Amino acid sequence: VISLIPVHGLPEIRADDDLAAMIAERIELADDDVVVIAQKAVSKAEGRIVRIDDIEASAKAIELAADERDPREVEVVLREAKNIVRERGPLVIVETQHGFICASAGVDHSNAPEPGTLVLLPVDPDASASRICDALRGLTGKTVGVIVTDSFGRPFRQGTTDVALGVAGVVAMLDLRGTTDRIGYELRSTRVAIADEIAAAADLARGKAEGVPVVVVRGLHLQGEGTGHEIVIEPELDLFR
Amino acid sequence: VISLIPVHGLPEIRADDDLAAMIAERIELADDDVVVIAQKAVSKAEGRIVRIDDIEASAKAIELAADERDPREVEVVLREAKNIVRERGPLVIVETQHGFICASAGVDHSNAPEPGTLVLLPVDPDASASRICDALRGLTGKTVGVIVTDSFGRPFRQGTTDVALGVAGVVAMLDLRGTTDRIGYELRSTRVAIADEIAAAADLARGKAEGVPVVVVRGLHLQGEGTGHEIVIEPELDLFR
Repeated sequence: VISLIPVHGLPEIRADDDLAAMIAERIELADDDVVVIAQKAVSKAEGRIVRIDDIEASAKAIELAADERDPREVEVVLREAKNIVRERGPLVIVETQHGFICASAGVDHSNAPEPGTLVLLPVDPDASASRICDALRGLTGKTVGVIVTDSFGRPFRQGTTDVALGVAGVVAMLDLRGTTDRIGYELRSTRVAIADEIAAAADLARGKAEGVPVVVVRGLHLQGEGTGHEIVIEPELDLFR
Repeated sequence: VISLIPVHGLPEIRADDDLAAMIAERIELADDDVVVIAQKAVSKAEGRIVRIDDIEASAKAIELAADERDPREVEVVLREAKNIVRERGPLVIVETQHGFICASAGVDHSNAPEPGTLVLLPVDPDASASRICDALRGLTGKTVGVIVTDSFGRPFRQGTTDVALGVAGVVAMLDLRGTTDRIGYELRSTRVAIADEIAAAADLARGKAEGVPVVVVRGLHLQGEGTGHEIVIEPELDLFR
């Protein structure tokens, strides 16, 4: 049996907060636990916040905003983007500097620390996960893993699901090639994005509006050296693109 | 706390097996439980099996198979497809008759009942989920939900995650629009494909090679009238396509 355990009682996260210590104080961790942390909490602790009044919109941002969105917000999205993948009205799907394809480069004002601010994705979510993982292991002596997640839309299907942006101490891609099923057939197409499945599972215990940014997934045996970067696919290998 | 509970001890499923009875015999269900069933078990119980020797490959199937794949298998894929979305070598991404976009129309020979057979997706996964949901509610008196799942690849990200094909008795899309976050902002882009997240969570407890087709997700409070069909997006609304 696997358990999805929300970590209650975390305060609003501020820049330079020690997330690992705040988590370790609130839950007794065990070996193999995967600590799943919403990107927004990580970004806030890392100070990845911009004040909208400090931003000047470019001509491109004003054009994209099309009077339907604050052009300064669009400007922040453009600065976080490597490429624009789709433009439709004021909504922009981009490839971020990390290689993620998502709406608005993950820039969001919901759950921002105060009005007039925007939260950006961490600069390097794998590095964020590693730092928190190391700190948690140091504080607890337990071989935990960490996944930093965000809610992404996707092609072909409605709605968002949570996915893994940064991973440390746990397998990200589970390769079942070479294993066989009950009648001895080799299982095909069986590279499972297990870190994305863990991210999605954790979201079930989160309750988006209630502000529970950390969920512990207990009962997996998936220690490993996965990264979020592994899950990002090169365009030329992407059969669906 | 949410629990992901694998249902052990199910035999190989055969045509006309009573899946609901087989599940109810093996686990004590509770109100609000979501019973997550791998598509292959449902398809086998529904007799959605073809014998490869009974298939004659069309010219198109022979061309697509390109000497790398049994053209009769490709023929079965083509018969299950409404459109071909991508062709690359012997791999075909299609839109199925249901509107799902997936590799090989979900046709698979892994975990097939015997060599030389292929398992197809259920004809109507929502109807399959409804039938099993009704039967489980009748047998147990508990207000359970049912989700029929499969492992799908997706654009932009490596690997598969399990998604919901058929849903009954449980919410499929969780609409958080109109709810506000801690500082009072309305949450945007917050239609969560919760049935896909439940599907992904259940896969964590499954162990693909070991043949555990049924997982119970306990601790959610998501009774509702969701369908798998709701999650399928109309191409003209698909910002990512």
